[in-house]
Amino acid sequence: MPRQDAARGAALKIFRAALKAADPYDAVLRHLRVPDRFENIYVIGAGKASARMAQAVERLLGKRVTGGLINVKYGHTAPLRRIELNECGHPIPDENGLRGAKRILDIARQAGPKDLVIAVISGGASALLPYPLPPMTLEQKQRLTGKLLRCGANIHEMNTVRKHISAIKGGRLAEAAAPAKVLALILSDVIGDDLDVIGSGPTVPDRSTTADAERILRHYGIKVPPLTETPKPSDPVFKHVRNVIVGSNALAVSAAEREAKRLGYRTLVLSTFIEGETRDVAGVHAAIVKEVLASGRPVRRPACIISGGETTVTIRGTGSGGRNQEFALAAAIDIAGLEKVTVFSGGTDGTDGPTDAAGAIADGKTVARGRELGLDADECLANNDSYQFFESLGDLVKTGPTGTNVADIRLLLID
Amino acid sequence: MPRQDAARGAALKIFRAALKAADPYDAVLRHLRVPDRFENIYVIGAGKASARMAQAVERLLGKRVTGGLINVKYGHTAPLRRIELNECGHPIPDENGLRGAKRILDIARQAGPKDLVIAVISGGASALLPYPLPPMTLEQKQRLTGKLLRCGANIHEMNTVRKHISAIKGGRLAEAAAPAKVLALILSDVIGDDLDVIGSGPTVPDRSTTADAERILRHYGIKVPPLTETPKPSDPVFKHVRNVIVGSNALAVSAAEREAKRLGYRTLVLSTFIEGETRDVAGVHAAIVKEVLASGRPVRRPACIISGGETTVTIRGTGSGGRNQEFALAAAIDIAGLEKVTVFSGGTDGTDGPTDAAGAIADGKTVARGRELGLDADECLANNDSYQFFESLGDLVKTGPTGTNVADIRLLLID
Repeated sequence: MPRQDAARGAALKIFRAALKAADPYDAVLRHLRVPDRFENIYVIGAGKASARMAQAVERLLGKRVTGGLINVKYGHTAPLRRIELNECGHPIPDENGLRGAKRILDIARQAGPKDLVIAVISGGASALLPYPLPPMTLEQKQRLTGKLLRCGANIHEMNTVRKHISAIKGGRLAEAAAPAKVLALILSDVIGDDLDVIGSGPTVPDRSTTADAERILRHYGIKVPPLTETPKPSDPVFKHVRNVIVGSNALAVSAAEREAKRLGYRTLVLSTFIEGETRDVAGVHAAIVKEVLASGRPVRRPACIISGGETTVTIRGTGSGGRNQEFALAAAIDIAGLEKVTVFSGGTDGTDGPTDAAGAIADGKTVARGRELGLDADECLANNDSYQFFESLGDLVKTGPTGTNVADIRLLLID
Repeated sequence: MPRQDAARGAALKIFRAALKAADPYDAVLRHLRVPDRFENIYVIGAGKASARMAQAVERLLGKRVTGGLINVKYGHTAPLRRIELNECGHPIPDENGLRGAKRILDIARQAGPKDLVIAVISGGASALLPYPLPPMTLEQKQRLTGKLLRCGANIHEMNTVRKHISAIKGGRLAEAAAPAKVLALILSDVIGDDLDVIGSGPTVPDRSTTADAERILRHYGIKVPPLTETPKPSDPVFKHVRNVIVGSNALAVSAAEREAKRLGYRTLVLSTFIEGETRDVAGVHAAIVKEVLASGRPVRRPACIISGGETTVTIRGTGSGGRNQEFALAAAIDIAGLEKVTVFSGGTDGTDGPTDAAGAIADGKTVARGRELGLDADECLANNDSYQFFESLGDLVKTGPTGTNVADIRLLLID
């Protein structure tokens, strides 16, 4: 654990508050309220965190849950009583996934007008709900999406095609559940929380069309398979559908902000949309710290500046680390020598890059403390070796796997 | 000129307010107040903008100015009546500079206890005040600083060495003026306004020592010339010295903020310390815009977010442009399709990179408008070809050379 002083303790408390808001179980408990009027309540869904979400539904609704089934990644289970767990392949979909998706669609179809279908959707749902429209086989679908990936198609293009060759995505799951009411509880791992994108939107009206999908396939020179139109926003089906984001980077950031306020900080949420090369993003964060010290702008001390989203690292060296540790190291270099400044960055899944740490914590003395141990911060950064640097200093932050993923949380404390 | 709509007009008004605050003449008029008690007032100094600063001193003090001399870059003149102008070499110092520096030091030396010495210091003062301590010659000094540069010495190391081989830098000009009072009017072109750094601080106590200078020279394997100690902060000389920053990026940003408020915007000054790779810095700015649109954080609409400092561009292509135009282009790509968002970036010197534009303005339609003209924004960015892109759209912002330089101003308007 990192050296403890007041600011470091505060940063860890604030991060823990963010993790709690992102926890699949807690998130569902906080958001699920179901009126008494339904005859049956079915729980379906998919995602890496969906077992824990389903567990929370059972905890709240108990015997009111008639039954259901969710597709989860192998090993991503939780003890359930009334809802069946189906473990299947991720990130490569498999036959178990297909079987589960068919049964999930069947459960939705047989729900009646007095029933409620609760869908628990979390990151990974897209791969965990494979159901290509016959006559396309799972293998053919995988070849098609593989080709698209290799052509350099972006996530929006991928999803547009996926939705028009799927029996369950692009709003089709909600369509199947009509006339039952649908309540989708969504844990978002997508920057910007675009409902359309999360798990390819099985309960969300689709804004794209078969014409769009065809255009994309032709653009990349791929033979166009049979496509089927998805339900559109004007479709009356969606009058009975409510999509609720129960956990997201934005909600985690808001929880962090509440905790920081409780600890006496003036808070500023910079953005939950932060992307880009980690060290440059760190530079902009450090520039804001310097302004707070110089002029009390954009927020006066004691200040806690919070940002979310997820950065990238262009690997140039041979060291180990992750984007959060690299952020902390780059920021440590930029704030070296400054007093009363603490910087933290952590991944909400608890595993930053291929390491056992969630992130790291740094302050104005970090670079000097590294030097005393014979570690050159600039060299470590150039070698992408943030893990070794912070491990030697005892400033890694380890939470273990958290069972959730709503991207990263960065904190700048200026006391 | 760029297409006019309300937000674009507002952005240009806000930039003009920043330029006015950074104007050398206006800046001195705003900050110079001199009591009546002085027998003589001498005006000395150096810098690219110092002629205009001296002109403002003459305008305010008229015949109270006894005389003086300032070193300016060739062609950077202004009509003066009582203060002599000495044009000299920049960025390579020359013999004219040396002659002027000697006379400036003489003027300071002969000032008496009832006199005031006003020093007008602006960007370029370091090269424009060359006065190596004898027996070192100007040529020997240039060889030495050239060697340091080639070894990769940073600006702080350069200045530490420079101050200890100079007869005028590192506080020595103020030392020479004692027992006269000294009022230094400083136009800062340095991020963070470190007085020590601006023009190598001729009127500012030096925190570095000959030992520091020696250590740096030995580190780079350079033969150590005779070094002389500079006056330190505790030196009683500085009781009679006042250093006033009359213009700076921070003051320009504050003026921009006032104008934005006047136009009805909620303002947020992000930082005046912004550095780093332009396109990544633009990405963070765009992420903040998205957050404002999504949640009203960190500031609610109508919002004007202002940032200062100066970014860099790693040249990868063969196009033309500057850091401000590249910022606007990278931001345009990141905000493409967003409504009611306007982005501006401009250099306060009026010349962005090797172009005749100060910067450029963009909004959510910029990328689409480029496409209509056959210009691919991503390709232009990859080729560092922001000038052609914005010129074709008519969205360059041209002010002509402004005679000042307090780095850059960036504006994000979210209406």
